[in-house]
Amino acid sequence: MSAQYAERLQELNITLPKLAAPLANYVPAVISGHILIISGQLPAGGVGEMTKGHLGKDVTLEEGNAAARQCAINIIAQARAALDGDLNRIVRCLRVGGFVASTPDFTDHPKVINGASDLIVEVFGDAGRHARAAVGVAALPLGAAVEVEAMFEIKLS
Amino acid sequence: MSAQYAERLQELNITLPKLAAPLANYVPAVISGHILIISGQLPAGGVGEMTKGHLGKDVTLEEGNAAARQCAINIIAQARAALDGDLNRIVRCLRVGGFVASTPDFTDHPKVINGASDLIVEVFGDAGRHARAAVGVAALPLGAAVEVEAMFEIKLS
Amino acid sequence: MSAQYAERLQELNITLPKLAAPLANYVPAVISGHILIISGQLPAGGVGEMTKGHLGKDVTLEEGNAAARQCAINIIAQARAALDGDLNRIVRCLRVGGFVASTPDFTDHPKVINGASDLIVEVFGDAGRHARAAVGVAALPLGAAVEVEAMFEIKLS
Repeated sequence: MSAQYAERLQELNITLPKLAAPLANYVPAVISGHILIISGQLPAGGVGEMTKGHLGKDVTLEEGNAAARQCAINIIAQARAALDGDLNRIVRCLRVGGFVASTPDFTDHPKVINGASDLIVEVFGDAGRHARAAVGVAALPLGAAVEVEAMFEIKLS
Repeated sequence: MSAQYAERLQELNITLPKLAAPLANYVPAVISGHILIISGQLPAGGVGEMTKGHLGKDVTLEEGNAAARQCAINIIAQARAALDGDLNRIVRCLRVGGFVASTPDFTDHPKVINGASDLIVEVFGDAGRHARAAVGVAALPLGAAVEVEAMFEIKLS
Repeated sequence: MSAQYAERLQELNITLPKLAAPLANYVPAVISGHILIISGQLPAGGVGEMTKGHLGKDVTLEEGNAAARQCAINIIAQARAALDGDLNRIVRCLRVGGFVASTPDFTDHPKVINGASDLIVEVFGDAGRHARAAVGVAALPLGAAVEVEAMFEIKLS
């Protein structure tokens, strides 16, 4: 793993987790030309258990935000693996799709998914600023509270 | 803002609203090569309050359809800003993602999101015909009834 | 329709269904350069009625998995039509978006959407391995139990 973004992760005291195997017959990342697509990541791999439950019921805004941050850390881990360890091939983050398991009356989905958006901008700076859709869904795989997917523009190797 | 699509907006008597600031650490639009990605837009900026609630409960089909139309107007406003005022750089609309806050027994999501699809085709004509996914979600940011995101193909400037 | 993938469909004993008309003012497929985007497909067109209802309530895991498989068959049918009958222009499947109508306590969304992912890999082999996001939504168009959208990389014709 080369300099810049790797050093930035160290400054932020972020250790990328061991990669979770996909839960099915798909792959965690796909590259097509200048585009890198990362599969939906769950908030596993951090300290303690994966955050499960629903915002508006049994998961607090702070817990949801931290879960989204962990999803983004996992996205970067998958990106690093897909780029053979070289995060510096990332030109910018293009889009983040954020899914929040929520009750019908919960309305603070943006504050939850900010956990992911903020982490990506902390690591990549202005190149981390992305388009985004954040929505509240009925339920997520394994009972996770948050799932985040992403798309990056990359340099050809 | 140059001719054609700007004139079409005038013919349709559509005034693009002031742009809403993103609710977080992200940007409303990203350009990568020939692709323009617009963040999920809420139905704010029209006449009166933003449409809130759930289809199948406290929002009618007509209100939902009008809300989706307003989301599409906001998408075009964001696209215009991202293209420095020149909507004619748009080659075509590629994809629309439509999220409808709905009860579990609501089934008319396509008729709701048609409000967005129809507006885009009214403005861009055949170049507005897009691929689409429309789904019913548990809840949306700020309690909005509808959220719509979009992707366009653009000419290089 | 030329060889390879067409033959593979025959080996799998899969007959592509008649294409469903879009439920609105959009198109089932869009091509932009090397990218083919397929609109969200419902599990219609197979044997019997379209699978309706919610996972975790009135649709079993097995039924949901079969429904997702049918969505993927419909995706391939739309891709074939968009490519003027030549599925061999497909370089690879890039992304699958899987939406499962589910109760808030359902957690096996990956096993449902595997029905789509497995079918795509059965037909396209390694070129079928894709990035994926699978989520549980409140409701889907027409009461469908599953909706799947997809993006492919294609050769220029």
